[in-house]
Amino acid sequence: MADAEIGLIGLGTMGSALALNIAEKGFPVAVFNRTAQVTRDFHRESGELASRVIPTESLEDLVAAIKPPRAIILMVPAGDPVDQQIKALAPLLAPEDLVIDAGNANFHDTNRRANAKLPVRFLGMGVSGGEDGARHGPSIMGGGNRADWDRISPILTAIAAKAEDGTPCATWMGEQGAGHFVKAVHNGIEYADMQMIAEIYGLMRDGMSLPALRIAEIFEGWNEGPLQSYLIEISGKVARASDPHGGQPMLDVILDRAGQKGTGRWTAIEAQHLAAPIPVIEAAVMARNISARLDERKEIQDRFGPAPQPCIIEEPILERALIAGKILCYAQGFAMISAASEKFGWSLPLPEIARVWRAGCIIRSSMLNDMAEALTEHPDRNLIMAPAFATRLEDSLPALRQVVVEATRQGHPLPALAQGLIWFDMMRTGRGTANMIQAQRDFFGAHGFERLDGRNEPHGPWGS
Amino acid sequence: MADAEIGLIGLGTMGSALALNIAEKGFPVAVFNRTAQVTRDFHRESGELASRVIPTESLEDLVAAIKPPRAIILMVPAGDPVDQQIKALAPLLAPEDLVIDAGNANFHDTNRRANAKLPVRFLGMGVSGGEDGARHGPSIMGGGNRADWDRISPILTAIAAKAEDGTPCATWMGEQGAGHFVKAVHNGIEYADMQMIAEIYGLMRDGMSLPALRIAEIFEGWNEGPLQSYLIEISGKVARASDPHGGQPMLDVILDRAGQKGTGRWTAIEAQHLAAPIPVIEAAVMARNISARLDERKEIQDRFGPAPQPCIIEEPILERALIAGKILCYAQGFAMISAASEKFGWSLPLPEIARVWRAGCIIRSSMLNDMAEALTEHPDRNLIMAPAFATRLEDSLPALRQVVVEATRQGHPLPALAQGLIWFDMMRTGRGTANMIQAQRDFFGAHGFERLDGRNEPHGPWGS
Repeated sequence: MADAEIGLIGLGTMGSALALNIAEKGFPVAVFNRTAQVTRDFHRESGELASRVIPTESLEDLVAAIKPPRAIILMVPAGDPVDQQIKALAPLLAPEDLVIDAGNANFHDTNRRANAKLPVRFLGMGVSGGEDGARHGPSIMGGGNRADWDRISPILTAIAAKAEDGTPCATWMGEQGAGHFVKAVHNGIEYADMQMIAEIYGLMRDGMSLPALRIAEIFEGWNEGPLQSYLIEISGKVARASDPHGGQPMLDVILDRAGQKGTGRWTAIEAQHLAAPIPVIEAAVMARNISARLDERKEIQDRFGPAPQPCIIEEPILERALIAGKILCYAQGFAMISAASEKFGWSLPLPEIARVWRAGCIIRSSMLNDMAEALTEHPDRNLIMAPAFATRLEDSLPALRQVVVEATRQGHPLPALAQGLIWFDMMRTGRGTANMIQAQRDFFGAHGFERLDGRNEPHGPWGS
Repeated sequence: MADAEIGLIGLGTMGSALALNIAEKGFPVAVFNRTAQVTRDFHRESGELASRVIPTESLEDLVAAIKPPRAIILMVPAGDPVDQQIKALAPLLAPEDLVIDAGNANFHDTNRRANAKLPVRFLGMGVSGGEDGARHGPSIMGGGNRADWDRISPILTAIAAKAEDGTPCATWMGEQGAGHFVKAVHNGIEYADMQMIAEIYGLMRDGMSLPALRIAEIFEGWNEGPLQSYLIEISGKVARASDPHGGQPMLDVILDRAGQKGTGRWTAIEAQHLAAPIPVIEAAVMARNISARLDERKEIQDRFGPAPQPCIIEEPILERALIAGKILCYAQGFAMISAASEKFGWSLPLPEIARVWRAGCIIRSSMLNDMAEALTEHPDRNLIMAPAFATRLEDSLPALRQVVVEATRQGHPLPALAQGLIWFDMMRTGRGTANMIQAQRDFFGAHGFERLDGRNEPHGPWGS
């Protein structure tokens, strides 16, 4: 009876895809869904993989179908459903059995569960790559007890995406919610990558009046160079697509109001708690929020028109600006990861994180290969200080500066790219302007300051 | 025995100042501090006001000393101490007695307390202006039941700061934590105002090589014009001050590492929850965080030097840039307040908020007079759409654009001013670039989009 190597609960889009992926790699998988009909349909439709899919219609049957010590993946909605599922499962399991939350959990919840002394073993696992990734190879970021991870890693590495060098994109990140945390930063960077592309797209469309097909060509060209990535690739594809109704470019018929599931916002909030600036991601979240204010934008345009002025910039300059923006964005993201690593007492492996993002997930790109190398050599330094990236930045930063300056002059908003540049200019300023802020704070609130000469006189002679 | 009009618990800096203010305005005040010696010392040192200060050494004595129905102000550390204090007081009080938390509470805590069906009446009250404000006239932002507010408003309006037109700066903002919420946004704006001044200061110091005394003159001049405000005034004063040791300008001996108590960060987090962009405040929080990374900044400067290039801009242009930045920052802050008003079911009175900030608090300025007027005429529209401010913005925005463009070109980071400008450019763009983001999201995650033609076909013909 106990033939399954692993169990899986929750046969929604992601759960189904993951179960088929597991079966395809040769592992018998027992599956369960709250609605038994869903389980039956899934089994019937799993085609030639059906022999390795074991449908079960009760948690007892599910547990009985899995070889002990058992491992069960939960792919249920984040939040309370996960707690409920663990509660329902626990009495049926042995202490050495393992429950793996592979949903989109907030890592604080994963921390809480990891610290809750559950009656079973527990891992939190971020899975990236959408349905297609889950089915054919996601990027997997695990967190929890290392020994538990090792026990199921043969299955996880088998189902994970493989980087070009063959390395599976499935990595244990650290204790507790470390895996879900890394997944969250991934999502924030995803927002930022998309926003920077949208900004350059806007400049080409509005500043240079390029038609969508020409823009498609440019993205396609960039996808052959240093910007090679899934998001640049699909940007070319969406720019090339035309509307079945009327044949206009698809981009020109889509409303400019972006949705969000809130994961970018959540990363921005966490960065505030960590005091780790991620202004490029923040700008991307802001841009989505502003995009939603459609009527207000039109009203303000009517009052303050005209629209932005022409702004012609050579393609290679735009490309280099995007390269610089990307480096700066990832430098901020990795610095946020370092801050979390310290705060939560994890030893998050920065080079491994760059490696695990190289395939399977939305932000996969060739540049992550180089980042993995650079972070291997200099894991404790800001990415922009790694020699390979410092050199690239020196090469590309003047282009970013030119693009931000020209676009801002002509009224084209580039929030994410501008924030990348400004963050760099602040980080390269040894003597900043916070002395003014400290003087003000001491003046009105006696908050005190430090002196450059080290003298311990924390207040100014402000008098009355 | 029951001679006191009001009681006050917590004789720290703020509590002591507030108690003396109350006594000075003619209201006998019963005071209590956990450490009796503090109470005795306070009474002894209250000089000619001692006759209206009633020291008590137990909560029972405190309660007995106040005329029923009683009102007791808590000025204890935010968080758990407030809950503990309410718990200790409640058994001694009658249901119609009123407890007022005048500390620096997170408004979510105030909401919780307001909804907790406490055995007594409860108000949450934001008090701004530091020790000096508390002693001689703070800005007071109240929240809770309107009838409770009305009962003590004679005392609060008597102790509050008075605007130039004589209006007391003490206003009921709405139910629950509305007062503490408004205080939080005030603090965020305070961060932003300070940061924008610091940015212009940096440009004068590093781009124009102006000495501190010349910078002091410029701020002093601006304080006679549209920028007249407490923060511009004290910026002039701190720039003019010189170090008792050696006579250098004070600004030049203060370390450029800004402290924070976290209230700006907290406002940035709340804005994320509200999806209400406040990028100028976010930039100010970022700047403080980056200022703390002193060693890293020096290291990066060493690698990427040289320092920023000269950048000469005429004073009136700088002044107008700061005017534009200020308008944009406040427009964002008021829009955040509107968003909260909707989310929490408050009817926050925007014009009254502008009025209550006109005196007593750190961000007091003459421009808030005009904002109050503009918001009275158009409470539901973005501040930049109020005719008086739209005109001012048209006049000052070109200067802001020039300053941001020139400074960015020369490597001077102006994060807050740039974010103000970019936010404006996004808000004035009727057709943005989020159509690209929607196309990408639909491509990789089938998230769907809306079409400009209203046709209900939410997915693109992306094919494979």
